[in-house]
Amino acid sequence: MHAAGDVRIENVPDPTILDPTDAIIRVTSACICGSDLWPYADMAPSETGQSMGHEAMGIVEDVGAEVRNLKRGDLVVMPFAYSDGTCEFCHEGLNTACVHVGFFGNNGFNGAQAEALRIPFADGTLFPLSVSEDDALMPSLLTLADVMGTGHHAAVVAGVKSGSSVAVVGDGAVGLCGVIAAKRLGAERIIIMGRHEARTRLARELGATDVVAERGEAAVQRVRELTGGFGVHSVLECVGTEASTETSVQIARPGGAIGRVGVPHYEAVPLAQPLFYKNVKVGGGPAPVRAYIEELLPDILEGRIEPGRVFDRTVNLDGVPDGYRAMADRESIKVLVRP
Amino acid sequence: MHAAGDVRIENVPDPTILDPTDAIIRVTSACICGSDLWPYADMAPSETGQSMGHEAMGIVEDVGAEVRNLKRGDLVVMPFAYSDGTCEFCHEGLNTACVHVGFFGNNGFNGAQAEALRIPFADGTLFPLSVSEDDALMPSLLTLADVMGTGHHAAVVAGVKSGSSVAVVGDGAVGLCGVIAAKRLGAERIIIMGRHEARTRLARELGATDVVAERGEAAVQRVRELTGGFGVHSVLECVGTEASTETSVQIARPGGAIGRVGVPHYEAVPLAQPLFYKNVKVGGGPAPVRAYIEELLPDILEGRIEPGRVFDRTVNLDGVPDGYRAMADRESIKVLVRP
Repeated sequence: MHAAGDVRIENVPDPTILDPTDAIIRVTSACICGSDLWPYADMAPSETGQSMGHEAMGIVEDVGAEVRNLKRGDLVVMPFAYSDGTCEFCHEGLNTACVHVGFFGNNGFNGAQAEALRIPFADGTLFPLSVSEDDALMPSLLTLADVMGTGHHAAVVAGVKSGSSVAVVGDGAVGLCGVIAAKRLGAERIIIMGRHEARTRLARELGATDVVAERGEAAVQRVRELTGGFGVHSVLECVGTEASTETSVQIARPGGAIGRVGVPHYEAVPLAQPLFYKNVKVGGGPAPVRAYIEELLPDILEGRIEPGRVFDRTVNLDGVPDGYRAMADRESIKVLVRP
Repeated sequence: MHAAGDVRIENVPDPTILDPTDAIIRVTSACICGSDLWPYADMAPSETGQSMGHEAMGIVEDVGAEVRNLKRGDLVVMPFAYSDGTCEFCHEGLNTACVHVGFFGNNGFNGAQAEALRIPFADGTLFPLSVSEDDALMPSLLTLADVMGTGHHAAVVAGVKSGSSVAVVGDGAVGLCGVIAAKRLGAERIIIMGRHEARTRLARELGATDVVAERGEAAVQRVRELTGGFGVHSVLECVGTEASTETSVQIARPGGAIGRVGVPHYEAVPLAQPLFYKNVKVGGGPAPVRAYIEELLPDILEGRIEPGRVFDRTVNLDGVPDGYRAMADRESIKVLVRP
């Protein structure tokens, strides 16, 4: 990406092992992420450009001398952040706060919308799978790299448990995975807030019990009507704007919680006083998806959840620029890239 | 209180039973609260004035026809909020979100810096004790009406547990009770942030392991030095200003939590992006002190905690105006009122 709206396919040097803890993967599938649409909307022109993409599955092609748990030929999930797997934060399951953390396709690091990629701290970062590359579960497994783990993080932080009432703010791929996560954790009522019919229809199929298409004050009133006047126990904030965060505060039940996973495009969390007087908690951030794979994987392998349904378009590398356009125009929920 | 700085002792009609769920208490001890200093600093002149005070112990003098659990002569703790004790929020232990909640000494309700007071929803509000009125434990028991329960709430919301590192922002009575609460919950390191020597000395006696007298960026650096560079697991925000909240965000460890109990005098929670990238949770609000009494009471009765040490001055009703002045001038930590 060279500037807002300017995505190009370019030849770059093949990645090579730089550190003994590196691995090289051949990317078998990658994605375009809702968060990629932020720079697609507002990136200042850059001479070098930014290699994009932070979600992938791939085949290990080479490993450095100190890599212990991976070998050539392994099929792996590549979470959006790399992490050493050994620091105290990794041990606590917060890999996205790893002391060596880095984010693919960000700040000069190469991205996964590519044929191959160098993976730092490969043992701590990559998650090897025991399924074959052409498995029909592949799209769902690919979501473990970001959106399914991120939706799950929102639900965990928002305290979703058996019997909870939940509102999911945002009908993008993360919001849809939030619906799956909320249902999986036992939520009784799951309200998807969005106005894009194909998405809210899919949300219902994935477990949403109600759709609120209104916005602003009307949306708040509608959620309150659906919840006996008090709002929901848990709000999954999957957008990242100030307006969506305001709505999240307004629809949270006293004593409830908000899990923020939409990258915040605002400076301060609005409505500090209503938050306080309602004793509502706000948490969330970059999801430690690496730590969640172990928990979520069996449900995918055994068909209990199907997060791969968020993909509604597949492109090759040449199709990536149009994939960005399609997602930005809300023609597509999420684009799968097969390099 | 008739305006900022204008506290007067006035005769008002004796309280009487208005609703069958009311009780009348004779106030045996009350307090001036740090939160009373906000209107003392900025209250606009009022023709009617506001009866003040929201923490008390008292003797039940009369009960309405529907009061079941109290009788004349009972010694009771009066939490700062009244609550019906029967709604779903009360059952969940969040009495300050009771559907009938009200706050003594606020919005026209009479306050406890008085000889007697009407208590709505007496069964749900008052907590009867089995100790005698002149018990030496009385100052500590009185803190169950607000500051001890509030400090405990901050610690609970901030997730303090065995081995935690904790910072307490604010060296007022609530902050000092936060120190007690953090120690009680097993915190290993407790940093009190304040520059008032008598208070930080008391904080050390109550369990603080470190004092940070710096402010702003220097304070943040100092806390990071004390905690291996990462900050603390739990921050107890006991002030309520935007600056203290910024500091709280900056000293929180990734994955940590902030418990806000200082009444927020700011519109939005600052540093929304650092909060997000560190996955730090923010919670808190008016403490459900009624719900906490049962847990905290045995530790007071058996002498394991001594929150009554936050009182360093006792006045009668005539001494109340000077008590406000003394607290506002930081001459006194907390004033006990014996009507």
